[in-house]
Amino acid sequence: MGLIRGDVNVASLSEAISRADKVPAASIVPAMPIARPGKVVCLGLNYVDHIKEGGYEVPVYPALFLRCQTSLMAAGEPMVRPSCSERLDYEVELMVIIGKGGKHIPEEEALSHVFGYTIFNDGSVRDYQRKTHQWTPGKNFDSTGPIGPDVVTPDELPEGAVGLKIESRVGDEILQSATTSDMLWSVARTIATVSEYSTLEPGDMIAMGTPPGVGHAKTPPRWLRPGETVEAEIEGIGICASPIVAEEDIAHTEAAE
Amino acid sequence: MGLIRGDVNVASLSEAISRADKVPAASIVPAMPIARPGKVVCLGLNYVDHIKEGGYEVPVYPALFLRCQTSLMAAGEPMVRPSCSERLDYEVELMVIIGKGGKHIPEEEALSHVFGYTIFNDGSVRDYQRKTHQWTPGKNFDSTGPIGPDVVTPDELPEGAVGLKIESRVGDEILQSATTSDMLWSVARTIATVSEYSTLEPGDMIAMGTPPGVGHAKTPPRWLRPGETVEAEIEGIGICASPIVAEEDIAHTEAAE
Repeated sequence: MGLIRGDVNVASLSEAISRADKVPAASIVPAMPIARPGKVVCLGLNYVDHIKEGGYEVPVYPALFLRCQTSLMAAGEPMVRPSCSERLDYEVELMVIIGKGGKHIPEEEALSHVFGYTIFNDGSVRDYQRKTHQWTPGKNFDSTGPIGPDVVTPDELPEGAVGLKIESRVGDEILQSATTSDMLWSVARTIATVSEYSTLEPGDMIAMGTPPGVGHAKTPPRWLRPGETVEAEIEGIGICASPIVAEEDIAHTEAAE
Repeated sequence: MGLIRGDVNVASLSEAISRADKVPAASIVPAMPIARPGKVVCLGLNYVDHIKEGGYEVPVYPALFLRCQTSLMAAGEPMVRPSCSERLDYEVELMVIIGKGGKHIPEEEALSHVFGYTIFNDGSVRDYQRKTHQWTPGKNFDSTGPIGPDVVTPDELPEGAVGLKIESRVGDEILQSATTSDMLWSVARTIATVSEYSTLEPGDMIAMGTPPGVGHAKTPPRWLRPGETVEAEIEGIGICASPIVAEEDIAHTEAAE
């Protein structure tokens, strides 16, 4: 957060890093990019072909929902299939991390409020998502939303992070494959829209919706199974890989410790 | 939070308070009961007559949504009517503050997880609530959700906080008047339901839905207007009073400082 708030000198940080002892990347355990984000706003329907596969109309305003802290974790940590449902689904998404806060941010200035981009897998438990018209429960199961591992600053990507290949897979099986150019609501327009009603704060995050190919829309449905590892990848940003574990097995491990 | 987590000796605190200098209650500026709650879960439709006035079906599962930090404030602080809408509505609600966290909390043990009860006014901007099927924007405008001012522990109330008169007013005008016995989902059942998908943490809050009489269901609609003070009262808990101010006037004041 110090880096985002601008009270760290990036040049001296860069110099310090260049002189520091090197460690193998594989030895690093990723953490959440922001330990306790103020809010995580998610767009539900932002790729036309995903809207169609879910049976929804193309909205004139984005379908927005929130994810809470307990539903989120770092890339690499287990993604938990709950004991009450087998319908755990994947959703690869571009995640925007806000750097400079604001209210009523004009669309033409919005991209200057972005600190960086990362990857989000908006893990969804579909039967709980549709128990009522409000998606909250299915979008907020414990440890279903991995974020990271890397944050890429805007200068390293096309403006607004458009034109990037976005894909999810299990092993060789490609589940979703699209480009971020297919997003209906751009990053800039989304920041303007959210900041009309809510002050954005440094470290807030906005998930930009998922392309088509989610498991519940496949025939037969393709749910994530314990033992698999789901990978969410965005070109130029990286891969967010999550091993799937059953809640029962986690409880068992904890009880045994 | 120290009090909730149990690392404060309540008996010695009580003794210290009895010996301390007294100040007039009117001189106290209330703060949020929990400065940064981990999550605030809200039930959308929990009183049958309010469900009917909104044109919804009685749900078999509660309609749940989340409110973020920037939408919440303490009792007594201004409730802000946004510049983009005149449709600011009130919703008096019982607010549960979680004391002991947990996952898969059985309904019959759930009340032992309650630290206390307070009052919530689930201020809603109705046109933004219904821009799509997801209510999030209309439920998350900046400074529309006052909480407090007092937290009452369960020993001072009927079990599950049932049988309490719950009312909202502007001056002599009674807007909502009901009893918490009309809640479809009890506090205990709600804690069990939410903790099936999400770990509850100390300081988390659950808003229990509002009784009938909201402004958008009246003919003509009864929106909150700048200059008014809306009071949300629950018997045995207190009054959460909020002066309504226009966003334009706040911006003006801040710019003038």
